[in-house]
Amino acid sequence: MTRMRPDGIVTIATDFGVQDAYAGAVKGILLRINPRLRIVDITHQIPSFDILEGAFNLNFYYRFFPRGTIHLLVVDPGVGGKRKGILIKSDDFFFVGPDNGVFSFVYDRENIREIRNLTNPAYFLQRVSPTFHARDIFAPVCAYLSLGVEPKEFGTSAEVCYKFKFPEPVCGKDRLRGEIIHIDRFGNLISNISSDLLKDEKIRIKVGRRTIKGLGGFYAEAKKRELIALIGSSNYLEISVSQGSARKLLKARAGGKITVEKIKK
Amino acid sequence: MTRMRPDGIVTIATDFGVQDAYAGAVKGILLRINPRLRIVDITHQIPSFDILEGAFNLNFYYRFFPRGTIHLLVVDPGVGGKRKGILIKSDDFFFVGPDNGVFSFVYDRENIREIRNLTNPAYFLQRVSPTFHARDIFAPVCAYLSLGVEPKEFGTSAEVCYKFKFPEPVCGKDRLRGEIIHIDRFGNLISNISSDLLKDEKIRIKVGRRTIKGLGGFYAEAKKRELIALIGSSNYLEISVSQGSARKLLKARAGGKITVEKIKK
Amino acid sequence: MTRMRPDGIVTIATDFGVQDAYAGAVKGILLRINPRLRIVDITHQIPSFDILEGAFNLNFYYRFFPRGTIHLLVVDPGVGGKRKGILIKSDDFFFVGPDNGVFSFVYDRENIREIRNLTNPAYFLQRVSPTFHARDIFAPVCAYLSLGVEPKEFGTSAEVCYKFKFPEPVCGKDRLRGEIIHIDRFGNLISNISSDLLKDEKIRIKVGRRTIKGLGGFYAEAKKRELIALIGSSNYLEISVSQGSARKLLKARAGGKITVEKIKK
Repeated sequence: MTRMRPDGIVTIATDFGVQDAYAGAVKGILLRINPRLRIVDITHQIPSFDILEGAFNLNFYYRFFPRGTIHLLVVDPGVGGKRKGILIKSDDFFFVGPDNGVFSFVYDRENIREIRNLTNPAYFLQRVSPTFHARDIFAPVCAYLSLGVEPKEFGTSAEVCYKFKFPEPVCGKDRLRGEIIHIDRFGNLISNISSDLLKDEKIRIKVGRRTIKGLGGFYAEAKKRELIALIGSSNYLEISVSQGSARKLLKARAGGKITVEKIKK
Repeated sequence: MTRMRPDGIVTIATDFGVQDAYAGAVKGILLRINPRLRIVDITHQIPSFDILEGAFNLNFYYRFFPRGTIHLLVVDPGVGGKRKGILIKSDDFFFVGPDNGVFSFVYDRENIREIRNLTNPAYFLQRVSPTFHARDIFAPVCAYLSLGVEPKEFGTSAEVCYKFKFPEPVCGKDRLRGEIIHIDRFGNLISNISSDLLKDEKIRIKVGRRTIKGLGGFYAEAKKRELIALIGSSNYLEISVSQGSARKLLKARAGGKITVEKIKK
Repeated sequence: MTRMRPDGIVTIATDFGVQDAYAGAVKGILLRINPRLRIVDITHQIPSFDILEGAFNLNFYYRFFPRGTIHLLVVDPGVGGKRKGILIKSDDFFFVGPDNGVFSFVYDRENIREIRNLTNPAYFLQRVSPTFHARDIFAPVCAYLSLGVEPKEFGTSAEVCYKFKFPEPVCGKDRLRGEIIHIDRFGNLISNISSDLLKDEKIRIKVGRRTIKGLGGFYAEAKKRELIALIGSSNYLEISVSQGSARKLLKARAGGKITVEKIKK
């Protein structure tokens, strides 16, 4: 495998919202330090302070980018406090942000090569606001990294990063209990039950008071406004309503239970 | 006319929303296949599943881009089902997305050179999710197209694309009946009555229970919170409220009627 | 100091919203005239017609960009009327937009080198809609400017630009009365009291019916859902609730009063 180097692309995902100019200030710093940088907006609408949603979001897009992409992710309710800033280098990507669990999925799934706490102020803005590390620490670190500064320059080595315990589905003999971990804009309920747990051909899925028989293939297979269960684009069991919202129909929330039962012959 | 070639710009408009990372995954694939690509976000807030709004949106921006721009538009409630993926080449642009009517305006107004159904899996991601063709089919097709792959490589030739029948205004001797086809963020009501139908100097416009005399030139010509009719920036009759919302004032909805009457001398 | 030239970056902030394609049309024109331009979205969600918010937003990000950046800012309720289009050149940046007060902060804080009214139609689109100067005047001006056209080519010289009077804090002997000038997505209340007015060590801050003792350093220093006063990332006094919303807790609005009192020993 050839050595991975930054490819000049920085993705940004934050909970800054789109009404304020916080993301704009971050982009300014990125470009001031490396005017050749190519910034890719992912979203600035992660629900405020929702670290778990940030982690889930990142997991959805990071691997599709070119090798060497720097992923900046900021959901940072603890900014200025004890949580550390962190740089993670995996086989294929760099990740920069607060060490508060936003990189939990990445830490599980990527082959991690190096972790650095961001302790070297030589790569911060001269004056660091305790309320805006995205602008004053994370953005400069991303920009200098893209210019070729080695990860080891940014701070002390770390062995691990902060990692959430994600709710794992509970597997019984004929039954699997999982939960909703994300609800998307369309009202689709995305569970923590991955497709490889669903090898049985005959199953029924229980969610709220409703039961769905078997897995469908795509949304429009169901009649308009009808419930369907399928394997979503991230390879997890997903509950949907064709051209409608499963969230609304089932009054569902993240954390809600989903049960898969094997149908006995 | 010189031959049109992709100019390295891909615009993206979708109904994916800005909270999820669907658009981020699409951008990742675009850049992984062609890291030189320049991505221009148009909007990811087209109302969910609203193909007509998608078509209207596209019509508003596509022609302003440089010749050779690739326009990716995804409002795709039928994803994974019978609707086809499509590539349209006109004199000046490329269009990629689902063949469900989103390209209706383009098909009417552009000089179409070539239409291809996206049937060649050589240009898809290796594994195609039936729920996310934007990432797995449309994005790779746009990226390979930008690298110089000829349209004919992407699939079988098609003669026509799916086209909506848009509501056309009904012209009488002294009266014109049209309707609201779009309401923008400012609450402006944009009709299907184009400016070339409004040559009479003395007209009155009826909308809801209100009557407006004559056409104004610009929003601020009306007093604050007052109704005004004018020719909008897309050359259609538009009903506005200066620094307010015509939508709110008139409780208007897309599909609502607008009547233009000639004032007899 | 070396001569400032456009650096090929144009930032865009507008009140166009993200559902319509107005911003898309502006980007198209920018790229059609200068395909090498690099567009940076700041926000398209400035509250409709809110010029003061636009001015505040700009002030938050403009200075972080590289020297030579062109800042396009459009909140333009008076479009088509008497207000002029304007180009401002400071020591470090260019600013383009309506002359209605959106550049008030810039005019105060930057060293202004040149102001031009946009009166030369040679640099407009051929046909100018009286409702969409962002597309038909401001975007072409930015693009030609980025190509090296001199500011003087765009129109007549002006001595001043339209400037709001911002509410200034009133300083008494032991008391300072300011107000909330912006509320961000997180519900943080940002005041017009700058940090250099807060040199006293022992102060109490009154906002609504609540009193806060002393300044904290960062959000998470307060307990979850608890009020804290601190110096925000723009160096103004800010009232926050850790992982909550000060706006909601205090039912606060822009314009609300904030009083700082010196605690007597």
